Amino acid sequence: MQKIVKPLIQRNDSKIVLVVLDGVGGLPVNGKTELETASTPNLDALALDSACGLHIPVAAGITPGSGPGHLGLFGYDPLECQIGRGILEALGLGLEVRETDVAIRCNYATIKDGFITDRRAGRIPTDQSRKLTERLQKEINKIDGAEVTFAPGMEHRLAILIRFPEALEPDAAAIPDTDPQKEGKAPLPPAPLTKNAEKVAGVAEKLISMAHEVLENEEKANFILTRGFSGRPNIPSFEEAFGLNALAIATYPMYRGLAKLVGMYAPALEGSVEDEIDFLKRNYGKYDFFFLHVKKVDSFGEDGNFEGKVARIEEFDRLLPRILELKPDVLMVTGDHSTPAVMKGHSWHPVPVLLKSPYVLGNLCSNFSERECTKGELGIFPTVNLMPLALANSLRLRKFGA
Amino acid sequence: MQKIVKPLIQRNDSKIVLVVLDGVGGLPVNGKTELETASTPNLDALALDSACGLHIPVAAGITPGSGPGHLGLFGYDPLECQIGRGILEALGLGLEVRETDVAIRCNYATIKDGFITDRRAGRIPTDQSRKLTERLQKEINKIDGAEVTFAPGMEHRLAILIRFPEALEPDAAAIPDTDPQKEGKAPLPPAPLTKNAEKVAGVAEKLISMAHEVLENEEKANFILTRGFSGRPNIPSFEEAFGLNALAIATYPMYRGLAKLVGMYAPALEGSVEDEIDFLKRNYGKYDFFFLHVKKVDSFGEDGNFEGKVARIEEFDRLLPRILELKPDVLMVTGDHSTPAVMKGHSWHPVPVLLKSPYVLGNLCSNFSERECTKGELGIFPTVNLMPLALANSLRLRKFGA
Repeated sequence: MQKIVKPLIQRNDSKIVLVVLDGVGGLPVNGKTELETASTPNLDALALDSACGLHIPVAAGITPGSGPGHLGLFGYDPLECQIGRGILEALGLGLEVRETDVAIRCNYATIKDGFITDRRAGRIPTDQSRKLTERLQKEINKIDGAEVTFAPGMEHRLAILIRFPEALEPDAAAIPDTDPQKEGKAPLPPAPLTKNAEKVAGVAEKLISMAHEVLENEEKANFILTRGFSGRPNIPSFEEAFGLNALAIATYPMYRGLAKLVGMYAPALEGSVEDEIDFLKRNYGKYDFFFLHVKKVDSFGEDGNFEGKVARIEEFDRLLPRILELKPDVLMVTGDHSTPAVMKGHSWHPVPVLLKSPYVLGNLCSNFSERECTKGELGIFPTVNLMPLALANSLRLRKFGA
Repeated sequence: MQKIVKPLIQRNDSKIVLVVLDGVGGLPVNGKTELETASTPNLDALALDSACGLHIPVAAGITPGSGPGHLGLFGYDPLECQIGRGILEALGLGLEVRETDVAIRCNYATIKDGFITDRRAGRIPTDQSRKLTERLQKEINKIDGAEVTFAPGMEHRLAILIRFPEALEPDAAAIPDTDPQKEGKAPLPPAPLTKNAEKVAGVAEKLISMAHEVLENEEKANFILTRGFSGRPNIPSFEEAFGLNALAIATYPMYRGLAKLVGMYAPALEGSVEDEIDFLKRNYGKYDFFFLHVKKVDSFGEDGNFEGKVARIEEFDRLLPRILELKPDVLMVTGDHSTPAVMKGHSWHPVPVLLKSPYVLGNLCSNFSERECTKGELGIFPTVNLMPLALANSLRLRKFGA
């Protein structure tokens, strides 16, 4: 897709706003989905005026994680650009990831006489693991010229980022997990799968042994198991791919991290959806493209809280006029995947989307919902096609061929 | 598709039932298609409760044979997994095909002074060709260590299966037809196109000459012309690709053969659709996936018998509640292709499909028909996507990416 689009890019002063209601797609309870149950007069009026449809994040029947879900919305094929587990963990814990970096998701574990007796160190409390992580950072910060950064997670989890002085080969992180997956076994060594992975493996080996020395006298968390070694995926930046100077507005680190991966500016931000919209307004003059992320819709879906999810959708609907006041040339409202409350998790279901611009048919969908969007002019289409539609509707794509 | 799906497979106790009403899609006569004309209260109620859509077996405008039609439904890309003519003929005549086998579709022909005078041996009656085939089998059963099996077809047709002691290279059957396609010409030799095809060509040459000796004194059928040399396509089994233990329920050998090609258990079975459903019930505990094939819908379509096709659809509709009693986790009803009675043959038209599971929107299609299915939540999609949807709806696929 990007291959077709890139040579056709032209710049102009248009503004594109992409609102991601995380996990917005749902399934019926008592005959109505979350979107159908929510009272959303503003979204409904906008849907009637917009091009609507449903998008498939990865492929038919495939439930996407947040990484592939967002990459697709950003116009990157999630099958071509896969994000390693370590990278996603690091992004989620607020670390910035560069081409010189390898990220690892880790567990504190208990080891005795060379064998793992607890892979999760008794799920030690978060405040305790936070202190241990600080200690590790204090004692270990450079190995063989590579900078080492530790980031504490919940309970026994932490992430480690190793920053080398130079950019790495694509297979530099080809190292299997050292977690043996079963108690009673010895931890595995970080064994490089390719020649290019030897350097990283060497640093990892030292790192694991140094961490063990630091933690030696801990009763439970005296070892770290490493998983999901990964480097930064090699993808063109948003500016390079689409000629757009983009701002990400998100309160959760992982979504800012995903935006940073594609080169969006993604400053730290706290607060409510209203605060996010205020931030959008304050920065509206400075960027071409705005990614505004609303996390809580998904969170309630994940908890199986149908009414809670409905309430967050209604909350956004009340705030929508404040975005409309900006009169963006293209406004898209959608999700990165579906999270039906009845399923308490992400699902494979196509995600409703509306795209408002002066160049749509409209008058096909009388509200913004999964069922109504089946009647829309966009049909059911791969998520990765949304960005070219946004570019076209902002008149940022030239004609293909003569 | 399979590449994405395979690493996500997880097993559980769910049951998936795929009902194939062969050739069910149709075209209007007096304004209504076969499905629209048939009185189908059970299918209509089920459609209202299901995810519906239309699937495209091979590609836009492409009319599929039964082989590609079924392979697509089974989740195999029919463009990647092509089934040779010889193999399909052998399957249709009830032969089992292994990786060690080469199958050939043959004609009895008349040869005189080295030239073909009748490519179809005067279309000799089936009972006569059956006797000749028995005689060939009696005289010829092993050549150069390979077992030779003859299977009689209709009139002048027969199939030959050559079973070698070891598995064959993919190009072992790269041998053009020996049928010169015109009377008055000499039969062509079975000339190998590749080095790997030399062994099969050598056996075929002896076979053709031995058959001629056996048939020498026949007035009409004194020679065999060989076509469609082919080996078993190299495709992963259903178990391997989807983690499903599958039972095929079909009364026609070809459909059992297609199911066996992908590793389904497909015992010989005779009787009515009711008998097929009884068989499903008796074996319901033993498998994960059930392919139930209803042939007669297509047969009447092929004959141009609109009312006959309508009657077979209505017959299935009356029996549908007996399948519903089993409460499968996922139930799909569709066809392998369309066979509009007005066209007296297969056609390229997308095929209506309904998929019932606890995880659908539903309430979009008020009956099961070509036109109503255009309103469904599945849209118009490639047939090969149906299996991933079935796996997703039976919660047999893990999340893709984090």
